[in-house]
Order: sequence, then C-alpha cells, then structure tokens
Amino acid sequence: MQKSTTKTSSPTVSPSKQETTPSPSIYAFSQSVSQMPQSETPKYILGGKGLGLAEMSKIKLPVPPVIVVSIPTCTYFQEHDGTYPDGFEKELNDGIAFLEKETGKGFGDPQSPLLVSVRSGAAISMPGMMDTVLNLGLNPSTLEGLSKKTGNPRFAWDCYRRFLQMFGDVVLGIEHHSFEGLLDEVKRKNGVSNDTELSVEMLKTVVEKYRALIQNETGSAFPDDPMEQLNMAIGAVFKSWNNPRAVSYRRINRVPPEINGTAVNVQAMVFGNLGDTSATGVAFTRNPSTGDKEFYGEYLMNAQGEDVVAGIRTPKHLSEMNTDLPEVYEELTAIFGQLEEHFKDMIDLEFTIEEEKLYILQARSGKRTGKAAVKIAVDMEQEGLIDRKKALLSIDPSALDQLLHPMIDPKAEKQVIAKGLPASPGAVSGQIVFSAIDAVEWAGQGKKTILVRNETSPEDIEGMNSALGFLTARGGMTSHAAVVARGMGKSCVSGSSDIAVNEEKKLLHCGADIDLKEGDWITLDGSVGEVYLGKVSTVEPEMSGDFATIMQWADEVRELRVRTNADTPKDAATARKFGAEGIGLCRTEHMFFKEDRIFAMREMILSETLEERVKALSTIEKMQQSDFEELFTEMDGFPVTIRLLDPPLHEFLPHEDAEIEEIAREMKVDAEVLKARREALSEVNPMLGFRGCRLAVVYPEITEMQVRAILNAAAVVAKKGVDVRPEIEIPVTSHYREVEILTEVIKRVADEVGGKENSESGHTDKNNKKSPAVTFKVGTMIELPRACVTADEFARTMEFFSFGTNDLTQTTFGYSRDDAGRFITKYIELGVYQVDPFQSIDEKGVGEMMLIAVEKGRAVRKDLEIGICGEHGGDPKSVEFCHRLGLDYVSCSPYRVPIARLAAAQAAVRE
Amino acid sequence: MQKSTTKTSSPTVSPSKQETTPSPSIYAFSQSVSQMPQSETPKYILGGKGLGLAEMSKIKLPVPPVIVVSIPTCTYFQEHDGTYPDGFEKELNDGIAFLEKETGKGFGDPQSPLLVSVRSGAAISMPGMMDTVLNLGLNPSTLEGLSKKTGNPRFAWDCYRRFLQMFGDVVLGIEHHSFEGLLDEVKRKNGVSNDTELSVEMLKTVVEKYRALIQNETGSAFPDDPMEQLNMAIGAVFKSWNNPRAVSYRRINRVPPEINGTAVNVQAMVFGNLGDTSATGVAFTRNPSTGDKEFYGEYLMNAQGEDVVAGIRTPKHLSEMNTDLPEVYEELTAIFGQLEEHFKDMIDLEFTIEEEKLYILQARSGKRTGKAAVKIAVDMEQEGLIDRKKALLSIDPSALDQLLHPMIDPKAEKQVIAKGLPASPGAVSGQIVFSAIDAVEWAGQGKKTILVRNETSPEDIEGMNSALGFLTARGGMTSHAAVVARGMGKSCVSGSSDIAVNEEKKLLHCGADIDLKEGDWITLDGSVGEVYLGKVSTVEPEMSGDFATIMQWADEVRELRVRTNADTPKDAATARKFGAEGIGLCRTEHMFFKEDRIFAMREMILSETLEERVKALSTIEKMQQSDFEELFTEMDGFPVTIRLLDPPLHEFLPHEDAEIEEIAREMKVDAEVLKARREALSEVNPMLGFRGCRLAVVYPEITEMQVRAILNAAAVVAKKGVDVRPEIEIPVTSHYREVEILTEVIKRVADEVGGKENSESGHTDKNNKKSPAVTFKVGTMIELPRACVTADEFARTMEFFSFGTNDLTQTTFGYSRDDAGRFITKYIELGVYQVDPFQSIDEKGVGEMMLIAVEKGRAVRKDLEIGICGEHGGDPKSVEFCHRLGLDYVSCSPYRVPIARLAAAQAAVRE
Repeated sequence: MQKSTTKTSSPTVSPSKQETTPSPSIYAFSQSVSQMPQSETPKYILGGKGLGLAEMSKIKLPVPPVIVVSIPTCTYFQEHDGTYPDGFEKELNDGIAFLEKETGKGFGDPQSPLLVSVRSGAAISMPGMMDTVLNLGLNPSTLEGLSKKTGNPRFAWDCYRRFLQMFGDVVLGIEHHSFEGLLDEVKRKNGVSNDTELSVEMLKTVVEKYRALIQNETGSAFPDDPMEQLNMAIGAVFKSWNNPRAVSYRRINRVPPEINGTAVNVQAMVFGNLGDTSATGVAFTRNPSTGDKEFYGEYLMNAQGEDVVAGIRTPKHLSEMNTDLPEVYEELTAIFGQLEEHFKDMIDLEFTIEEEKLYILQARSGKRTGKAAVKIAVDMEQEGLIDRKKALLSIDPSALDQLLHPMIDPKAEKQVIAKGLPASPGAVSGQIVFSAIDAVEWAGQGKKTILVRNETSPEDIEGMNSALGFLTARGGMTSHAAVVARGMGKSCVSGSSDIAVNEEKKLLHCGADIDLKEGDWITLDGSVGEVYLGKVSTVEPEMSGDFATIMQWADEVRELRVRTNADTPKDAATARKFGAEGIGLCRTEHMFFKEDRIFAMREMILSETLEERVKALSTIEKMQQSDFEELFTEMDGFPVTIRLLDPPLHEFLPHEDAEIEEIAREMKVDAEVLKARREALSEVNPMLGFRGCRLAVVYPEITEMQVRAILNAAAVVAKKGVDVRPEIEIPVTSHYREVEILTEVIKRVADEVGGKENSESGHTDKNNKKSPAVTFKVGTMIELPRACVTADEFARTMEFFSFGTNDLTQTTFGYSRDDAGRFITKYIELGVYQVDPFQSIDEKGVGEMMLIAVEKGRAVRKDLEIGICGEHGGDPKSVEFCHRLGLDYVSCSPYRVPIARLAAAQAAVRE
Repeated sequence: MQKSTTKTSSPTVSPSKQETTPSPSIYAFSQSVSQMPQSETPKYILGGKGLGLAEMSKIKLPVPPVIVVSIPTCTYFQEHDGTYPDGFEKELNDGIAFLEKETGKGFGDPQSPLLVSVRSGAAISMPGMMDTVLNLGLNPSTLEGLSKKTGNPRFAWDCYRRFLQMFGDVVLGIEHHSFEGLLDEVKRKNGVSNDTELSVEMLKTVVEKYRALIQNETGSAFPDDPMEQLNMAIGAVFKSWNNPRAVSYRRINRVPPEINGTAVNVQAMVFGNLGDTSATGVAFTRNPSTGDKEFYGEYLMNAQGEDVVAGIRTPKHLSEMNTDLPEVYEELTAIFGQLEEHFKDMIDLEFTIEEEKLYILQARSGKRTGKAAVKIAVDMEQEGLIDRKKALLSIDPSALDQLLHPMIDPKAEKQVIAKGLPASPGAVSGQIVFSAIDAVEWAGQGKKTILVRNETSPEDIEGMNSALGFLTARGGMTSHAAVVARGMGKSCVSGSSDIAVNEEKKLLHCGADIDLKEGDWITLDGSVGEVYLGKVSTVEPEMSGDFATIMQWADEVRELRVRTNADTPKDAATARKFGAEGIGLCRTEHMFFKEDRIFAMREMILSETLEERVKALSTIEKMQQSDFEELFTEMDGFPVTIRLLDPPLHEFLPHEDAEIEEIAREMKVDAEVLKARREALSEVNPMLGFRGCRLAVVYPEITEMQVRAILNAAAVVAKKGVDVRPEIEIPVTSHYREVEILTEVIKRVADEVGGKENSESGHTDKNNKKSPAVTFKVGTMIELPRACVTADEFARTMEFFSFGTNDLTQTTFGYSRDDAGRFITKYIELGVYQVDPFQSIDEKGVGEMMLIAVEKGRAVRKDLEIGICGEHGGDPKSVEFCHRLGLDYVSCSPYRVPIARLAAAQAAVRE
C-alpha cells in the first residue's frame, strides 16, 4: 500500500485550518440509513457529492448504499504524511460491513461479491481531481462469483477489464493510452472494431495483458485483496487533491481556502449494463438551457455511466423512457419533484436502472444558462418553492451578461481563426479596417466595420465609436480597447497572440494560413474571445418579462444605488434602459477626442500664452456645453457626475511623425514646434504624471471652461423643465489643498454664471448677486493612497467621494495596468492571488485603503456621499464589498448595470 | 489714513488660529522698564526683534526706549479688515507717552522732537517683509527743532530727506528709483557726485522734489502729523506680512503656520551720524565664519545704519574702535559677554553710538557657517555656558554638509558661466566629456573629468564612477544624476537651464556667449549649484577635533542607528569613516552596469530559455560574489543589507539604435532580435512595471544566483575571520505571497550552500545537512502602499522592513519622480505644501502609511527591525520623524551620515 507520502511543499494558503482529528471519519447512508454529521456545514464534512447522497437518503430516495470518508480525514491525511486518524481502520471495516449488510453481498465474497465505486467529492465540483474507479472489489475469484451470479460471463469479464484499466490509470498512474494500445492490439488481431464485439476469450487476453502491463510498470502484481484495492483508491483520491490540475483549478476558480480537501464516496455498484431492462443516464429537473419546466435528460439502455460520457453510442432522450420502461419513468419523474421540493433548486442527477430497479447515484444543483437561471428563479418563486430572496441568490449576476448582448447563433457554422481575451461581450460581424480614420469613413458610407489594431489609444476614440467591434493583438482585459469597448457596449477581443496586424499595409494575418485584407468580413465573439471567418449569424438578446421581474425584485431589496459610467447621450440612454440611477462617471476627455474638437484641443495645448489657451478653450466650451445639455436631458431627475479633464495633455497629440506633420499643416504651425512640444510634454510614467487636478491647478483656465460649460448647460436645460443635478468631480487628487484651490475656481465661475452650490457646509457665496440657477455638488475622485489616508482633510470641502479603483489599484499595488499583464498572469498561476486585482477589488489592500477613506471621510462629514466608478463597479464580488463598506452607490458601464443591480441585491440579502 | 484693507483672499493654511482679542496690544521696554507679556512663548507675542530688545531691557542693557505692537494685534488686523482691537488707540498714545518720558523729548514737539524708527519683527527673521522706516516724526516744524537742537542743519535736512524717501518707498509704495532719480538730478545739476557733498540748500531742493513726487503719486500731500505717520507705518508693516515676497519666503523656508503675523517695533531714534563721537555698527560675539572666540564686527563713524548696509563707505574693523572710542569699546565688549551669558548663544547685534553714548538696537542669534557652529557649540560647552544637549541643538545638521566636501576657495576669482540645482555638494574641477565611455577612457589616462549630459541614465553608471562630477541640462534634485552623485559623494549641478548640451558634437553652450568643447576645464560647485569657467582653486574639508567631539556627543544620545546606502567598497569605506553602522541599502543592479558585466546581463535578458539564462547568470555570479566579499570585509561587524535586483530589465538594454547594433555585433545576435526584445520589454510606466520581486518571482534563477553569490561571499570572508552579517532584502513587494515564495527560494539556496537563517521564527530547516556557515536575515523593502496596509502579513515571514520612501512617496501621491517637477514647483509656489515631498517625508500622507506599516508589522513581530533607506534618510526633518516613529535605523548616502547622526541626536534630545 502506498500509504505514506512526503509532505506537500505547496504553499499553505489556508489561514484557518480545520480540526485535524475529527470523529467519526466515515458516515454511512442508504435508502434506510442516514448518518448525518453534527455540523452546520455538512458540505465541508461530506463534500458535495456525499451531501447530495446524504440528503437523498434522508428523504428515502433509492440511493445505492454508500459510505463517505470525510473531508477532515483528507485534511488529516495531507497534514500527517499520508496517514489516517486513530480508529480509521475500524471505521472503514464497519463501513464495509454496512454496505455488505445493506446489499446482502460480501466484499471479496466469491459467491456474492460486493463491488463498489470509489469517487472523489469535494465541497465544490472539482474536475481536476481523480474522479472515479468503478467495479472495485473484483479479483479472479470474485469475478467468477459475479459471472455466475449474473449468469453473464462476458459482463463480468468486461467489468474486470474496465476495473483494471481505471484502477491502473487513476490509482496506479499508468498512462491511459497504454491500456488503450493493448486493447486495440487485441481488437486488431481478432479483426474486431467495437468494444462490444469483444468475446469473453478476447477479454481474458486483454485482462492478461493489462495485468502484465501493471506488473511491469509498478514492479508488483495487481492487488487482488479488495481491502487493499480500497485503501489504495482512497489514498489516491486524497492525493489527487493536490495534483497540479486540481491546484490550478482551485486557483482559476477562486476556490476559497476553507474548501480544504475532498471526501471519498465508496458506494455499492449497481449495473446499468445487465441487459435490456438496465440503463444509465443523466437528467435535469428543468431545461438548463431555457429554464422551461420540462424533463430534460438522456439515457442509454444496457450501459454504464462512462458509456454515456464517451459518446460512442447516441443516447436517447429521456421522454423515450416512457416507452422503454414506463414504470421506472414514472418513478424517476416523481423523484424529480421530490428533489426540487427538497433542494429548492433545479437539480442535475445521475441515475442507473439495474434490471428495472431505479437508483439515483448523484444529485446536485444543475448548471444553467443566464436565461434559464432567470426563468427558473421566477418560476420557482411563483410555484411557491422558494421566496424572492432565494430567487435572487439563485442567479449568478455575471451570467446576466449573456442576456444583454447579441450572441452567436448556436446553430451557426463557424471557423475560429483566432482566439484572444473576452474583453467585451457580444457577437458582431463587420468588415475589417485598420485605422480610426478608415472606421469613420467607412461608417460614413453606411458600412459595418471591425477596427483591427495592434492596440488602440485615446486618439482612436472617434473611430472606435464608428466601428462595431475591436480586435487587438496586444493589451489585456483592462487595455484601452477593452475598457472603451465595455463602456460603449461594443464587442471586443483583445490581446490575441494568434494575429499579426500590419496597420500600414492593412493586413491581418491569423494563425498559420489565413491572411485578410481591408474590407474582409470577420465575426467577433467578445463573450468568449473568439474570432470567426466571414459573417456568422447572431441572435439578438431578449429582455424577457422574467428578466424584468428579477430586476424589480432586486431593486426592492438592494441598498446600493447603481449608476453608470457614460460619456455620451447614447450610452446614457442605454444605461437608463438597463436601470441606471444617474451617471457616476462622465469622462469629459472623451468629448475632446471627437474630430472637430481635437483640433481646438491641440491648439490649446500648443498655446504659449494664457490668452491663446483661453481662446482655444472657448471653442471647446461651446461644444462641451451642448454635450452636457444632452446628457443632463437624458438623465432628467438623476445625478450626473462630471469629471474634470483627467489625462495628461500629451495624450491629445498625435504619435506618428507623419500625422504630426499633417496636423502642423492644418494648424499652420511649424511641424518642428509641434514635435518639440510633444517631446516636452512626454513623460516617463504618464500614469503618475502631469494630469487630472494637477493640470487644473496649473492651468485653471481649463477648469473654468469646463465648469462654465457644465453650469451653463445645466441652466439651459433647467429652464426647459429638466431636473438637473450636476456633480463636479475633481480627479487625481492627493492633497486637500488641490481640492480647496479648485473649489475656489469652481465657486468663482459659479458666481459668474449665477450658479449656486448645494452645500450645507461652509461654501457661503455672499458676493453672489445673481439668482441661483441650478444647485450642484463638488466632490473628488479618491484614487490615490494619499487621498485615502488624508480623506478627513478632503471631506472638509468635498461633498462626495468617488473611488477610482482602477488607479487606486495601480498605485496601491504599484502596478501599471498597461504593463502588469506580464506578471499578473504568472501570479495567478502561482496562487499569489486568485483573481486579477483589476477585475475584482483586492479587499485586503485596496479595500483597506477604501475603508480608511470611508471612515476618515464620514468622521468629518457624516452625510458624505460615497460611490465607486472604477471598472470594479460592475464586478459582483466587488459590488458586495462596496455594500459591506457602506457606500451609497456603484457606477459601472451601461451593460453591467443589471449585473450590479442583482449583485447589490444579493449583498443586501446575504447581510 | 489707509486703515482699512480688503480681506486677504489667500488660503488660510493655519489650522490653529490664535486668540484674536489679546490684551495688551502694546508692550514697553527701556533700560529701566521691562513689560514682558504673560506667555510661555513671548516670541509669538513680541516677535524676534521685540523679544531681543525685551530680554536686553531685562538685563539693563542700554536699549533705546521702544514699544512693541504685538503679533496678535497683527493677526487681529489681518482678520478684521485692517482694523485694530478695542483700546488700541489709547495704548498707542500711552506707548508714545512712555517713549517721550524715557527720552525727555516730545513726539511732534518742535523744540525737542522725538523721532522713532518703525520696524517689522516677526517671530522669525523675514527678509521679505517691510523692514524699516527711520526718523519718523519729522515734519517741517520738528525738522527745525532737530536742526536747532543738534546745531546741525545739514544733519536735520538729511534725516528728513531720508525719512521722506523711506516712508515714500515702504509705506506709500512709490518706486525707490523715482526718489533716486530726483536725487541724482539734483546732484548732477550741482556737479556733486557724493551724497555727503550735498549742501543744506541742495537737500532742501531734494525735499521739495520728494514732496511733490509724493503728492503726485498718491494724490495727497505727505502727512505731517507724526501720529498719522506712525499709524500709516504700523498699517504698512502689518500689510507687508502678506505681500508676495513675504508669502513666498515663508513657503520656501517652510515657516510653520503658527508663525502668523509680525510685531511692529517703534523705537526712539538714536543717531550715529551726529558727528565724530557718533557711530553705528554691527557685531558678532564670536567669529561667525570660523567660530573663533574673538570680537567680530565693523562700524562706521558718523553714520546711520543704512550707510553700513549700502556699502558706500568702507567700514572699520571692530578692533579699531579701541582707538577711536576706547571707553565705548570697553562697554561694548563687556556687553558681548553679558549677551552670551544671557542668551546662551553667539549673538549678532546692531549698535549705535550717539555722542559717545552706546545703544544696542538689536540682538539675535548669529548666523554662522557649519564650521563655526561646531566650534562654538563645543567651546560654549567647555566654557560651561551650555550643556551638551543644547550644544547639539545649536547646530543645523544640514550645515554640516559644508564640512564634508571640498569648497571653492573663498579667495579665488571665478566666472559663473551657468547656474543649476545644487544637486550634490562639493566643488571640483575637471575637463568636460560628453559620454560615459569617454569618461571611462579619459579616467584611464589619468585625467580628471566632469561628465556633461542632457541627463544621465543607469547605463552611464560606469562613466559616472570615473568622472569627478556631473553637469546636466535636465532633471531635478532627485534626478538620476543627482541621486547617483549624492550616493557616490560626487559633485553635481543638475537641471541647468543655462546650458545647451550637444552630446553628439561634444559641445557645451553656456549662457549667451560661452562655447566649450571636449577637454575644456570647468569647475562645479554642487553646494550652491554654480558652474565656473576653468580651474578654480578649492579647499579641502577639515574634519576638526570639534567635529569629532560633536559626533561623539551625538552618538551618546541618539537612539536611531545610522547606516549608509553604498554599492561599492569605496563608498562603504567613506561611510564608515563618517560613522556609518552598517549598510542599509546595497543596490546590486549598480554592479550589473559595470562594463564587463553588462554584456553578461544583456545575454541573460536576451535568453529565450531557462538554460541560456542560467548560463549567463553564472558569469555574473562570480563577479557579484567578489563584490560582496569586498563589501562584507569593509563592513566587518556591521549588517549589510543587500537588495535583490530592482529595476526592470529594459534598463539594461541600450537605448540608441546605433548602440544596439554595436551590441548585436559583439554578442553575435541579429540586431533586429535585440531591437524586438527591447521593444517587447519596453513599458508604458516602468516605475509600476515588471521589476523587483516581480522579476524574481517569474525568473527565480536570478534570485538564486544573487543569493548564492551573497551567501558564498559571506562564507568565504567568515572563514577569514570577518564578522559578516548579511541581510537579504526583497524589493517592490506588495503581497505577502511574493515574500513567501522568494523566502522559499532563498532558503533552498541557503540549504544548498550550507547557510542557515538567523530567524527565531518559523524557518526551521530540518533538512539542512550541512553545518551552518553564516547567519543571515531575510526582509523586505516597504515601498508600496499595499505593503504598508498589509504589513502584518509580511511580518509573518520577514525579519526586517526597510522603508523605500522614494517609491512610497511616488505611489502614495501618485507622482512620478521623473515627471512631477512640472507641477511640484508650482505646488510649492501655491503653498499646497511647503517642501517637495521627495526631499522631506510628507508626514501626513507617506508618514501615515509608514505608521500603519510599523504598527501592523510590530503587532505580529515584536522585534521586527525597521529602517528607512530612501533619500529621506539623510534629511534632518525626516530623520526626526523616523525617530518619533520608533524606527531602528536610518540609512543615507555616505556624505549624509554625519548629518543623520546629529539629526538623530537632536530628535532624541527634543523628545
């Protein structure tokens, strides 16, 4: 027996270790016995599979007798060099005795042999682990017994052949294909092409060869003692908890450290392959794809579970069983109801019929599409099976994303030509173009385009607005293309290492042999990160009544408000449709990138004097004002947070010399002057450079222009009866004097245009001679660590805070979002953290900074309004964190609004 | 009267405002009266000048009667629109009555007119404010009285002329040159070239013209009423507190907000210009340049104070007074002793002799050179005047810097050809070279060079090591050139906008008309930021016995240990000479830049496989080991903290295409491959990129090599009897898993080479079969906000923390040190903060992060060793902060070590 192992050298990430000497180690269940552990979280003792069997035994469903070796036993095993707790051997013997008693068979009994399956079963589903050994307990003598008892030698020999192969593979670690090779050899020699055609004699040959292979590979004979087989299998399952695949799986799926080990289920075998009254199958209690209340499943007559999975024979639809085995069908469908009633959930089950006797081998919560999740939740609530809170909790918020975007038609034929990151969901077809300018031009001709670039930059923004989707060779999930795409609700596949883009020659090379040129059609699926050749048909999302119902329930319970990040009236309209309660972040700089404005912006940047700068700004002011008027009108009755200019000025200047020369001609400026100015403005670390409020403090005239545009726009639409609630937001602040200085600028402009601040605190404006036109708030982004630790100083003048968690994550970790991809992937692989901190808020670090800011801010200003407007605002886990932190709202891109609403509701329910 | 002013619109930065209705507003002092305010900080009531007079009156020194309008009255004036507290008028009248009584003269009395001087006097010396109006109280009738009483009409008219001019200038705000122009006109018309040659008649003409000018400029006649004159002068002084020069001065000199207003000293005039038994002068009680105990000063017979300042006549040395006025001389020198005895300090005083009667007009602590400060402190302690603590506090730590570097010979002739930032102190002459390669080559020929560049980069490091000083056109006080220079103890003038450098053509253009070429001689003075043409002679520093005494006293009281940042044995030796107690930061990457290593380093970076990388690393390993051996030997008995590789890899690749092609030829690699690799490694924000522990986690083989080199070096020197104490430091950490992963790597290598860790906590190494060779510690830089807020997690494995406050300041503020110059200067101008946070620790923000880290770290590991190794480690104010924070040590560049020792001592004494 391979009982001892060297202690694992893998990192012990678990902060809380479970008690290592649990008692008992083994629990027994059958249709008549249900020995539940005394624990509030029996799943952490029995594992998911074990608990499912336990629950079914509790309601007397026909489960084959089973004993469950507990998860704490596995933990003990891991921590004690592969040994077991005291008394384990006796418990195991007792367990086998239980199985023998319940089945009336004997483990190793040549007359009536008890065979068992051995399966792993952690608290969560873990595909990476050792899964299953069937028919354990067979040896030359029990084989004979089985053969006689069933009167089916071929069946017995086939069982034995399978057992040797599975045990050899998963317990002894001999390559699967070694066994397959031997099997093929026998088949070839005998001129047989199908496993089912193998005769008993042929199977005997196979068995001989298998035993020789095992002897050869392991250096010892195949163990014939059933108890030895069982002990080896249990040890193998326990060890598989730390095999690389399993460890990766846990990392990738953010498995929390309290999920710490696997149970082993040792269950009496039942046989679906005992003839034409036997069968095996899988079923869902409702349709997992649509959510419809209909039985859904498939089965194979005269087969074992692995045959269904292998897909050699085509299974029958469950409804056909009504013909094949009507009584069993009736029993099974009745069980569906019992299961749903008991588990209050849509259930996925495995069953086996052994000579017309039905057994349920496994039951678990059924995986489902977003659409199905919504329908099932609403239906079950209406059926009285669950209440609204449980209905809300039953839906994975991220799954809603599928409902909000066009999808590839599941029936469509498609050829994948490249893969990349699923940067922004939705499927779309278009003709490829290679520059922002072309995108604008082609869109002007009414063409549908996909913008293909090595990477995108802020100057591409207008072209991005014209294209339907983006494909980039470089950049991660939070690259410029990805962020803009999610913001605009466009499809994006980013960072595709499968493609090579020649922007100059307008060529796209995909994989080894596909070359595309401008105008060729491709289809993107940004939900999965795939690129297809040509036009692939897509299906439009349905905003069904059930979806609306769920959203209504969510709104009833959630405490967080949900706003949107939107820069255009179109985005704002989309977001309102999705239920946004205001704009949490309007990035004014996006407005500057429009073709007619970038010119004025560049003029402003190139100005040598204040006067020139003011002149250029006045051109932009008119345009900004009309933008704001539209935005305010669209958001009638809701707050609109407008961030003052954020990026460094060099972002507005063209990068290429050719381009800059063209601009210089347009502007009637010497190209060298432009180049020199660009050079002077260039920065080593632009992320930490001359941007945001720093620009505003040094060039207050920019702020003056923006504030004038905001307040004048507000006054104009207010006169038309719009309920306008502007919130002016100061970005990139790290010192309270920055916001004081800019608040003075804002107040001064407000006095000039006759606005009046909505503050109860301090901002008296006794010199204001005009009547107040609109009320507004002044607040700041909190996106730098210093702003967090000095938030009390900021709260003296600021009426609201909005966490910019993108930048706060960058500075708290010291990561550049543009560069960190190189190591973040490796870090996730190594389990430094389980999820990219740019995707989900790092609660320990960034979250701690946020907590400090909330506490310090509210200590000074009790009614301080606090929100979040980083990318994290649309991440369900982060939304829950924001709820716990006591924020007032989250703001996310329009297409994430429903997700945030549901996540906020779930957070409130969980609390 | 200009009594009311509009309320100032300047920011109110003062968090603590003083009580605004003080009583009394005015205090009176004379040789017989001393009306001290009831306050623990009389300086904040009377100002520095007023307090000096008050103190002197207390010990009955001959001060002319004076009344002091208090600082709180000024504060009231500022906060109440230029009005005075109740009862002020009466107090002022009483004050004038006091002056009249003490002098026996009358204010405005035509027979025996009392004239007064009006001077500002804040709690600190404030050159930016209105300074002095003399002879106030004169008008046509008192002028006659003065004339008669003194029998000296010319004197009287000259006083009047001066009064009109000073009052017109400083109170009425008429340009000084307008008065000078009129004076010149009269002199020209009368063929007179010297003021002293002006006759009474000519002076009358001047007075007429002055009065007309004043009428013309202000629209009203010059005020003849002495009380009106006085009120106007007091108001002008108060207003001058907020004039732009004064506001700038306070900002630049970090004047704390509790210094909030100025006093006004109204003092009876005494005249040094009443003839040959009158005189005026300034004196120091000891030599302020050398510190020698000798009378030091100068005086002018028959003159007023302004004549001494104006420098028209050459004053006599104080010793000559023994001949001119022997009795007065005796009285004066006796007073020197009284002053030192009373003030326990070296005193700077102003005196006037009016017809053989001595008056002391002012006494204050005398400014002194670093050398004098040290000598005076030691002498006074030995004289029993002060104790050691006061001696230590009497020296400005920064002033020590002068003692540690060569200085320009004060007697040398020099021509300034450019100015820049005083980036690294010391004076040095050399021949200019324009590339690092040339610097190395010329140094090889035994030539002294100054490296002149637009800016320097890490690849210049070897050339920088060869040159004696650096001059750069770009970059601030914390630019690469500046930081390296301070680290190496070389002279550096950085960011000189006066020069244009053509590196290609090897030309240096200075100012308008000086062009220099390779090989021309220049002299840098990095202490003041000046560049001189040719060789200017310098004087070597003297490490006098007094210096050693002060250092010894400092060491007796300080609690902070002082280490040094040193990468080479030479630096380490210098630092030990200066008293460093170990190395707090050895930057291993500097070793990689040496010519013979950069090649191997580049090979490593270009490696495509682990094997290639390991091969290249093994070349470097041998070199690193021998470096460490030297360093350990040099630091025998002291800890040596060695930081693992910190910068991103692209820093090691050449920037220019020509250079990269050369390298490619050397390396026998296709230049395009090199370029592509450089491109692939380039980063948008390298500061936040793939560097430090991130490299180490992804490429553990680099860490393995470095740790092997460290531990093998330690073992080698330990065998030779060296007491070696290596501390391995992990840089750029933000997550505790990073240090856990790397600690495992370090442990593994240690086990391999037979080292053993010096940890009492957890790191058992039961598998270590070799005998321990050396003990070492493993710790981390704390330089990112996330490391601060999760310091408890780091302390579980880390044995020491070292604050990297450069990077911590960058990430806490969100500032790139390379780019922030553009707005930091403006921010300081605007008073956002008083000092560049890269120069002195920002206590509110960065300091708060440090506090969090210290508290969290020590909560987990009580004996956690904590130090600081950023540039701030040599800044006295930051050293004091580190002391308050309870750190164990500060580490700074070698030449800052004595400064840090003294600053640490002062912090301990102050506590």
